Amino acid sequence: MVSKIKHIGIFTSGGDAPGMNAALFAVAKTAESYGIKLSGIRRGFEGLIDNDLIPLNSRQLQRIMHLGGTLLKTARSDRFMTALGQQKALRTVQKNNLDALIAIGGDGTFRGMLSLANIGNTPFIGIPGTIDNDITGTDYTLGFDSAVNTAIKCIDNIRDTAESHNRVFLVEVMGRDSGYIGIYSGLSCGADSILIPESDEDITYLLNKIKNYDSEDAFIVVVAEGDALRVEEVMSQIRNVNPHIELRVAKLGHIQRGGNPSAQDRMLGIRLGVLATTALIEGESGKIAGFCNNKPSLSPFEGLVKKHLINTELKDLLTLFCG
Amino acid sequence: MVSKIKHIGIFTSGGDAPGMNAALFAVAKTAESYGIKLSGIRRGFEGLIDNDLIPLNSRQLQRIMHLGGTLLKTARSDRFMTALGQQKALRTVQKNNLDALIAIGGDGTFRGMLSLANIGNTPFIGIPGTIDNDITGTDYTLGFDSAVNTAIKCIDNIRDTAESHNRVFLVEVMGRDSGYIGIYSGLSCGADSILIPESDEDITYLLNKIKNYDSEDAFIVVVAEGDALRVEEVMSQIRNVNPHIELRVAKLGHIQRGGNPSAQDRMLGIRLGVLATTALIEGESGKIAGFCNNKPSLSPFEGLVKKHLINTELKDLLTLFCG
Amino acid sequence: MVSKIKHIGIFTSGGDAPGMNAALFAVAKTAESYGIKLSGIRRGFEGLIDNDLIPLNSRQLQRIMHLGGTLLKTARSDRFMTALGQQKALRTVQKNNLDALIAIGGDGTFRGMLSLANIGNTPFIGIPGTIDNDITGTDYTLGFDSAVNTAIKCIDNIRDTAESHNRVFLVEVMGRDSGYIGIYSGLSCGADSILIPESDEDITYLLNKIKNYDSEDAFIVVVAEGDALRVEEVMSQIRNVNPHIELRVAKLGHIQRGGNPSAQDRMLGIRLGVLATTALIEGESGKIAGFCNNKPSLSPFEGLVKKHLINTELKDLLTLFCG
Amino acid sequence: MVSKIKHIGIFTSGGDAPGMNAALFAVAKTAESYGIKLSGIRRGFEGLIDNDLIPLNSRQLQRIMHLGGTLLKTARSDRFMTALGQQKALRTVQKNNLDALIAIGGDGTFRGMLSLANIGNTPFIGIPGTIDNDITGTDYTLGFDSAVNTAIKCIDNIRDTAESHNRVFLVEVMGRDSGYIGIYSGLSCGADSILIPESDEDITYLLNKIKNYDSEDAFIVVVAEGDALRVEEVMSQIRNVNPHIELRVAKLGHIQRGGNPSAQDRMLGIRLGVLATTALIEGESGKIAGFCNNKPSLSPFEGLVKKHLINTELKDLLTLFCG
Repeated sequence: MVSKIKHIGIFTSGGDAPGMNAALFAVAKTAESYGIKLSGIRRGFEGLIDNDLIPLNSRQLQRIMHLGGTLLKTARSDRFMTALGQQKALRTVQKNNLDALIAIGGDGTFRGMLSLANIGNTPFIGIPGTIDNDITGTDYTLGFDSAVNTAIKCIDNIRDTAESHNRVFLVEVMGRDSGYIGIYSGLSCGADSILIPESDEDITYLLNKIKNYDSEDAFIVVVAEGDALRVEEVMSQIRNVNPHIELRVAKLGHIQRGGNPSAQDRMLGIRLGVLATTALIEGESGKIAGFCNNKPSLSPFEGLVKKHLINTELKDLLTLFCG
Repeated sequence: MVSKIKHIGIFTSGGDAPGMNAALFAVAKTAESYGIKLSGIRRGFEGLIDNDLIPLNSRQLQRIMHLGGTLLKTARSDRFMTALGQQKALRTVQKNNLDALIAIGGDGTFRGMLSLANIGNTPFIGIPGTIDNDITGTDYTLGFDSAVNTAIKCIDNIRDTAESHNRVFLVEVMGRDSGYIGIYSGLSCGADSILIPESDEDITYLLNKIKNYDSEDAFIVVVAEGDALRVEEVMSQIRNVNPHIELRVAKLGHIQRGGNPSAQDRMLGIRLGVLATTALIEGESGKIAGFCNNKPSLSPFEGLVKKHLINTELKDLLTLFCG
Repeated sequence: MVSKIKHIGIFTSGGDAPGMNAALFAVAKTAESYGIKLSGIRRGFEGLIDNDLIPLNSRQLQRIMHLGGTLLKTARSDRFMTALGQQKALRTVQKNNLDALIAIGGDGTFRGMLSLANIGNTPFIGIPGTIDNDITGTDYTLGFDSAVNTAIKCIDNIRDTAESHNRVFLVEVMGRDSGYIGIYSGLSCGADSILIPESDEDITYLLNKIKNYDSEDAFIVVVAEGDALRVEEVMSQIRNVNPHIELRVAKLGHIQRGGNPSAQDRMLGIRLGVLATTALIEGESGKIAGFCNNKPSLSPFEGLVKKHLINTELKDLLTLFCG
Repeated sequence: MVSKIKHIGIFTSGGDAPGMNAALFAVAKTAESYGIKLSGIRRGFEGLIDNDLIPLNSRQLQRIMHLGGTLLKTARSDRFMTALGQQKALRTVQKNNLDALIAIGGDGTFRGMLSLANIGNTPFIGIPGTIDNDITGTDYTLGFDSAVNTAIKCIDNIRDTAESHNRVFLVEVMGRDSGYIGIYSGLSCGADSILIPESDEDITYLLNKIKNYDSEDAFIVVVAEGDALRVEEVMSQIRNVNPHIELRVAKLGHIQRGGNPSAQDRMLGIRLGVLATTALIEGESGKIAGFCNNKPSLSPFEGLVKKHLINTELKDLLTLFCG
């Protein structure tokens, strides 16, 4: 098949997520198989503004596709929020004869791509890369599974010490406004309680359970960072119903962003990288490359960039295991 | 909801798989929420024949749900292949007033359940637990994701030494007749070549690639144990096309069966355990509790117990990355 | 050899540390080889006060010796600080005919043993079990190496995201008043700066380095929790010399206490368990079972329970790598 | 201090070992602090013969010091066994004005350095880098601790499946003629039996134990690859004394060579790198940079390059735990 695309530019933007390097590798491999040149733009929109490009090839990426982080580095860009920044970005696209763009990032990244599309007419595809799993158009975002696997290893460690002391632990996990990392890691570690933004009953469940906590065992509470109640408020509410409890807090923080990607995220990065590249070659644009119902699938950009809700099945599990 | 089921028996059978303890935990939690008694049958059909039962409760299982292996132990049973064995198994069911059974295992386990169903009339549900991902009725079997994650950690290690020496490695992974572990772990590690039972071209791809191998880099071949060509034959074919190559072999073996389950397998064990238990309560029987298109789903037993084929999407990835 | 000791009691006290189960296994194995009965006292001095004993045997411990935490559970005991508590503890020793005691814990534990020795005359040996490495009489305490290995895996993860964003991270590690975990994990991860209680120049090194930080790379600061400057103070001092720096903080916390022990801690637990048991059999008492200069070695208790200082060699490494 | 050394060449040779990159980082950091230029020689003696040099600096090495393998790659060199090869190597040293050399490798590497010293007069220091721990002049070689930690994770996995099936496993670990990896990993995993080259009774212990094995539990045998009895012979001897045993074999192989180095190996690499560089600066030559009795220490080369024996303490542990 003959494609009008001779040169693709790719960048990673927003928070880094494990699996981004695997996606870069897959894009390079696919582009090469079609004789398409691939350039990497460094530091997301910042590099697009500053014309900071490097050539990419699959052999070099093959050696690092299993590593966390992103070879292209990433950034949040205030300058791109301005008309001037977007003009400069557009000039970079034109100066380098980029026929198409692939952006790996979260909702902010995709909004940026839409703004760029409004002033230019370069075809582009977005790959949802964020540990938060808060993008529609895919069942799982790139990096989510790795972040959950990192979180459960940490919580398993905490279980060891919690059980040795019969202690109550509050473990805060990442996810911004999304409870996905919270509910997945909490259920996966047999947490006694899980607090997520998408549930209101969860705190009631917790207080009912811990009211009668007898210090005869460990008690682990997983709190999603986006929950309405911050960890400190949860602590004081717990103390209200059971004053004698000794509480310990662990905020897992940024370690959830790093580490070698899990098998699922490497496969996802590969699948989405291949899908994004072939979609551009087939003339698609303004789509998100996702994985839905266990199949690669393209979805239109517009309206997609909203919160990915915890569904009923997961809420029922929350009630069953923590209610 | 009132269910006629007052007592459920559960066992794990065939090869153990990470996530089995998580499934046991979920079944116990669900049964308790319905006031149903749960008994564990030890060593699969062997324990059913020998009336080797233990009581199970969710609090005890909560502490070990994150560990590999199976608390109930597992076994392959020749005695159950006989009419006498099956009669004894049936007697155990009756003697203990087991109103329903949940079996966690592979196709052999499910064939056994069908035989038992032919002589008794105890409702039963099967949970596909095997690292091989070779059961239909579910997109992923319990233990598969953990086995792949263990395999990729090993292959990442091998990459370190392969690149330090610019060496060619043949890595044999498990999967019996299925190439799933092979293709997932191979793609996830940027393998140069992957040999699976479901492909005939793969060996041609390998020989074409390695013919011109210049010893300037690592070269990693992942071989699924079920591939028509055994590792030794692959080695001799490689030597035929490129006599100067120094080959190293690594057979990952049983380490792929153990270790703490991955997040995906813990979630899968929880989901399938809940689904199997509620299905029995709702009067279902002779079904497999699976996870398809990102949703829990029941499928009829009959005809299901056949090989789970590598689909076109995966074969295309194989051609793109190793062709 | 005939020993007057027929029954040994063992307990873990203070903070739990990976390797405690390996030590229990080794004590059981050694005691059995001499036909000595072994009882486990649960929850440290609390169980000694409450007469909470369980029988221990090596076969059961062999299966869990590789797991983190402590089978006997552990606790800090206020009651044991009182004369009444110590009398009750002594009564438990007498009632159960315990001929000798082995205590696994930190300096607080050992002070407690000395108090008990003042009122009773039961022979006892202490095994230094704490992740902080702040006990003399051994080059490394039980759990230290595991905690450092957990810390470096976390810091490696943080490096992935720090380099993807060219960010400055402050990582707080455990160690109470000791900088051992800080200096070992910091050096092992190529930290740009390490702040430990034992050094005064370290903050000067940090400020000199970061004054000219150009945001062209990651910059990782490891802060030992016992350092005079709390993380928050360090942040404000950094902002004083370089106001434009975006800082991120990660407090590793209790995950450093858990997880399966490292090989070194399993070997150390085995070695100290064997040494403590044989020492009691040979009539020793009031000693610490340690590992010094790569050999098992007993040291008298008195005066030993003081801080384990960072030596010159380590301070020189700090200056070379972070100065 | 003023040193006559202005330019150091460093290479890694023989089998790669985790921690080599940490040693390179430490050498670069130390050299820079003295204003000394550092060049890396690629592929060991091969690169010395082929004049394959690259500049090294600490900032670049800081980012990869935590990774397995070796940035400089490594090789075994037949050409260096010849007078011609050694002449070419010497010419590379002279052509590049290398005032001193640091070689990281095993006994073969050190013998090579002695040959080179016989024809040239370039000062050199050796750093013992091998997972086998078979070099004298240091208590632990670089890579040993990482290999043991990899081995125990694998054996822990095997324990999961062995206990689920009550199976007997033979696990072969690396170590060439040395039983160090075998005895450390075996003891650390609670192996029932350990076979190492340094012991003759070990097979008797095994056969006595397994004679009465009742299939009521797992039974794990760790076999060092250098043991007089190959795994296959051990299997047949086991079958002789207990014909009904179902045996499983796992050869861990090259995965023990790779992976990110453990904390101990990173610290060791740092310490030996600093020691080797400062030793050269202080005018030392023909020494091994080692770590003995918990201190960095230099030892003369001659006669050192012989087997590192398992001492009595370890043999007594073998008898106690497996006898």
